[in-house]
Amino acid sequence: MESDHYNDPAMFGGCSVPIRVNRKSKPSPTVVNINGIPIGSSSVVIIAGPCSVESHEQLLETAREVKKAGGVLLRGGAFKPRSSPYNFQGLGKEGIKMLTEMRKATGLPFVTEVMDTRMVEFVAENSDMLQIGSRNMHNYPLLKEVGKLRKPVLLKRGMMATIEEFLLSAEYILNEGNEQVVLCERGIRTFEPTTRNTLDLSAVPMLKHLTHLPVIVDPSHGTGHRWMVPVMAKAAVAAGADGLILEVHYKPEEALCDGFQSLNPDEFSRLMAELKKIAQAVGRDIY
Amino acid sequence: MESDHYNDPAMFGGCSVPIRVNRKSKPSPTVVNINGIPIGSSSVVIIAGPCSVESHEQLLETAREVKKAGGVLLRGGAFKPRSSPYNFQGLGKEGIKMLTEMRKATGLPFVTEVMDTRMVEFVAENSDMLQIGSRNMHNYPLLKEVGKLRKPVLLKRGMMATIEEFLLSAEYILNEGNEQVVLCERGIRTFEPTTRNTLDLSAVPMLKHLTHLPVIVDPSHGTGHRWMVPVMAKAAVAAGADGLILEVHYKPEEALCDGFQSLNPDEFSRLMAELKKIAQAVGRDIY
Amino acid sequence: MESDHYNDPAMFGGCSVPIRVNRKSKPSPTVVNINGIPIGSSSVVIIAGPCSVESHEQLLETAREVKKAGGVLLRGGAFKPRSSPYNFQGLGKEGIKMLTEMRKATGLPFVTEVMDTRMVEFVAENSDMLQIGSRNMHNYPLLKEVGKLRKPVLLKRGMMATIEEFLLSAEYILNEGNEQVVLCERGIRTFEPTTRNTLDLSAVPMLKHLTHLPVIVDPSHGTGHRWMVPVMAKAAVAAGADGLILEVHYKPEEALCDGFQSLNPDEFSRLMAELKKIAQAVGRDIY
Amino acid sequence: MESDHYNDPAMFGGCSVPIRVNRKSKPSPTVVNINGIPIGSSSVVIIAGPCSVESHEQLLETAREVKKAGGVLLRGGAFKPRSSPYNFQGLGKEGIKMLTEMRKATGLPFVTEVMDTRMVEFVAENSDMLQIGSRNMHNYPLLKEVGKLRKPVLLKRGMMATIEEFLLSAEYILNEGNEQVVLCERGIRTFEPTTRNTLDLSAVPMLKHLTHLPVIVDPSHGTGHRWMVPVMAKAAVAAGADGLILEVHYKPEEALCDGFQSLNPDEFSRLMAELKKIAQAVGRDIY
Repeated sequence: MESDHYNDPAMFGGCSVPIRVNRKSKPSPTVVNINGIPIGSSSVVIIAGPCSVESHEQLLETAREVKKAGGVLLRGGAFKPRSSPYNFQGLGKEGIKMLTEMRKATGLPFVTEVMDTRMVEFVAENSDMLQIGSRNMHNYPLLKEVGKLRKPVLLKRGMMATIEEFLLSAEYILNEGNEQVVLCERGIRTFEPTTRNTLDLSAVPMLKHLTHLPVIVDPSHGTGHRWMVPVMAKAAVAAGADGLILEVHYKPEEALCDGFQSLNPDEFSRLMAELKKIAQAVGRDIY
Repeated sequence: MESDHYNDPAMFGGCSVPIRVNRKSKPSPTVVNINGIPIGSSSVVIIAGPCSVESHEQLLETAREVKKAGGVLLRGGAFKPRSSPYNFQGLGKEGIKMLTEMRKATGLPFVTEVMDTRMVEFVAENSDMLQIGSRNMHNYPLLKEVGKLRKPVLLKRGMMATIEEFLLSAEYILNEGNEQVVLCERGIRTFEPTTRNTLDLSAVPMLKHLTHLPVIVDPSHGTGHRWMVPVMAKAAVAAGADGLILEVHYKPEEALCDGFQSLNPDEFSRLMAELKKIAQAVGRDIY
Repeated sequence: MESDHYNDPAMFGGCSVPIRVNRKSKPSPTVVNINGIPIGSSSVVIIAGPCSVESHEQLLETAREVKKAGGVLLRGGAFKPRSSPYNFQGLGKEGIKMLTEMRKATGLPFVTEVMDTRMVEFVAENSDMLQIGSRNMHNYPLLKEVGKLRKPVLLKRGMMATIEEFLLSAEYILNEGNEQVVLCERGIRTFEPTTRNTLDLSAVPMLKHLTHLPVIVDPSHGTGHRWMVPVMAKAAVAAGADGLILEVHYKPEEALCDGFQSLNPDEFSRLMAELKKIAQAVGRDIY
Repeated sequence: MESDHYNDPAMFGGCSVPIRVNRKSKPSPTVVNINGIPIGSSSVVIIAGPCSVESHEQLLETAREVKKAGGVLLRGGAFKPRSSPYNFQGLGKEGIKMLTEMRKATGLPFVTEVMDTRMVEFVAENSDMLQIGSRNMHNYPLLKEVGKLRKPVLLKRGMMATIEEFLLSAEYILNEGNEQVVLCERGIRTFEPTTRNTLDLSAVPMLKHLTHLPVIVDPSHGTGHRWMVPVMAKAAVAAGADGLILEVHYKPEEALCDGFQSLNPDEFSRLMAELKKIAQAVGRDIY
């Protein structure tokens, strides 16, 4: 039986799947609800927005374009984990405030990153979904803290985390009582230098096979090239992703962060049309 | 201009693309012709067949199923590069003879691997396309030897080869005068143990961006799991692959090699139907 | 000039070294002082102790053996970052208390891990050196928090971190004003499964070349095999390490964590004698 | 019992060691004899010489310097596997002839690479030891061909090969009857860009643990930096290597290949003196 494969260590490289995230303990897929938007249903959900919240204007203009093109959930970072202390570190609480104003103006709920246990309560109260970024996938105190919430969590795969470690990190959250977890494949680190990361699309069917949690894909960080985002977004939907998270900026060339991998509104709008065809080809639709 | 990106070392990790394979030196896509079957056109070509030629019956039965389901080109190994000297090493020249008989019986042209410079002439005379496998991507005497032919070559990416090295290996072949080269992404080696390799689908748009040569994908070796082959085959077509090479065996559970990643005829037939929809969704069809 | 190499992107894969950790901005080596014990001088410092603090007896017995064999600094974890929520998570504050009692009884200062910004103050007040573990090398709020202290920090390389990212994380600490940072190579993640990690000893001369900060090596996590620790400890000293951090347990077979890679007291004692010879062979001694 | 560890899949990541190379089937270490020079004894053997044979003068001058400093075996490539077809491909048979003349003039035996099955007989007749390079570790026809010889073989680890695959490739040679095989760790490919490869020194004790064959290290390719070669050479001897293979060139700045990682005669001479101390510190000497 195929549904038994994932406990066969010979087939899965020794991967053992912890109990709460394990599909065997809950055969029906989990649908995570973000202010009415379901991730994990037959409809593919598109999350889009800027890498960082930079200003009222930038955020609002980008959000309006996202909404116009059919995006239903906004992404935007206020607390930014940057490799260098000399890079833009995000607007912090002020950025979160701008996001809530954006929501008021456009009706779009949003997901935003939290990096520090001391900020979890604040971010939870002022957002629709909390993101745990790649660099914090192994930050267990943070995972436990968001596990105590009853709020959706977007958990990104660590940049060099195995599938097993990814599932164990999700288990930390479920084990504290929060079952509203969406997993996100965002590229892993390999020896290949032409792409920012190597987008591991096999992780999508593998995770869907092993766990009942929904799985989305981030082709922006996964590739690091704006021109490559649309084609890999389509491949991700063909691979069975329950959603996509895309960097979109109203003026990518002026972005303070990740402009080189952000779509402009026109590119995003064209992509939305193409995604519909792919979703239909695999028996789904775009939410 | 996007077409200039690939000479920008900051954008492409220092990757430099050699002249003969470089898309700049030949903007129109190369179409490789295998006994009338074009790879690199708007039609996606499906190559299918067993990992190894094992017997007349196995080969013929499998070929008939492949043809019935719509496959147009057969794969089958007679000279097998196996990690262990104690594994089945292939039937050698006898296997090649069986392949030519299969072609006579079914009309299907075939691609088969060559590993030894001393065998190039024989394999070239008795096959329709020569495969250089992953383990020989860096075998420069072999690349030069197939470069002297006027016969199509299927060059598989080394299991830990960069895109640049892959293109340089193709350049070895073109530099000897043979331009009939098809590139094949087949998964790279990473730290992740749940899949046999990590299928690097980003390599498809990246290669199409950098070179005029056609690019196909091998989801069988790329994943190592039979159940995962169809979904990743679809993702590969969505990612822009010009073809697929799939392991199909009339009785996978009895295969001497790679049965765990081989589709049976029913699975292959169902997949062919699904691939048509994906191809249409990206403006192509199945050859 | 060799001292210029490290700003040559062609030679160092594009690695750029930030200003405060850069050897060019401070040519003399930094010596970090842990309660009178200098790391970064001509003497190699041996840090040893259990993975986790488990009990008064375990800690005290192990500390006495470490001291008897010549170890001058104890390691021991109270807050443990474990991949699974179902593994022993450490004794927390109670463990820190046991460590301070161990210090009172033996005179050995100690280093212990901190994972949560909310615990930094407490751990700083009750330890001699704070460890930032591999899983938190990218935890920037935590790095900033320990940067505000005037207390030595042991920063371990992330399991997936480049040399450049490692130096940038150290820069976060120095940039907040704390220059008492020791870097620790502890193995990186590769495709090789026979060792827990791949101990990257080249990182020792590379880091010494690029930065003025001291560099130590953890062969216990770096190899994951008790029997391999002594030989790799010797190789690390030959490679120029300023110190070693070793897992030692008075009864490894009963350890709650990492027993398979912990030396017993006899093995540790023998190793100390052998390390003296290697240190002398490279013109150094053991502190 | 430690000697049993290597059949414990839980301890060794599933690595299984084939019978002929397995230390269990032959507990005493194999000593490979190259014209009277033993590799695998208590004495560490230093192999040195240029990457490529470029001219009579270059080869002879370099060989004299190597001999003067205490080197006993020369390395030099005539058939060169180069990533690009536009790089210097070596002098071929002419280069082999120069090597035999060098031997006549200096008395130094030499090791040289063979890449093509058609050249094995010629190279075997005209050299003292055949090298199978990293790019050909998976070239099974070539392994079988050198297995039929009764001549020492230097087998380098593939840049992407696991320890298990490395041992299986050696097994191919032993299985044909040739037991005179020396294994060489030369760095593996990882995500780290500051070194050419990541020198995996843990492979030395691991291989010595699993097999009776001697193990040497190539710190020149392992690091890719001339200044780093001496320190990593010392670390390799501390790690238990039975020998080193070093790139030395009488004028590195004029080398046609790998000058950036080649020692000049003075550097090599100084290193030889330092290696003696390290060898003594681990109870060995330099041959």
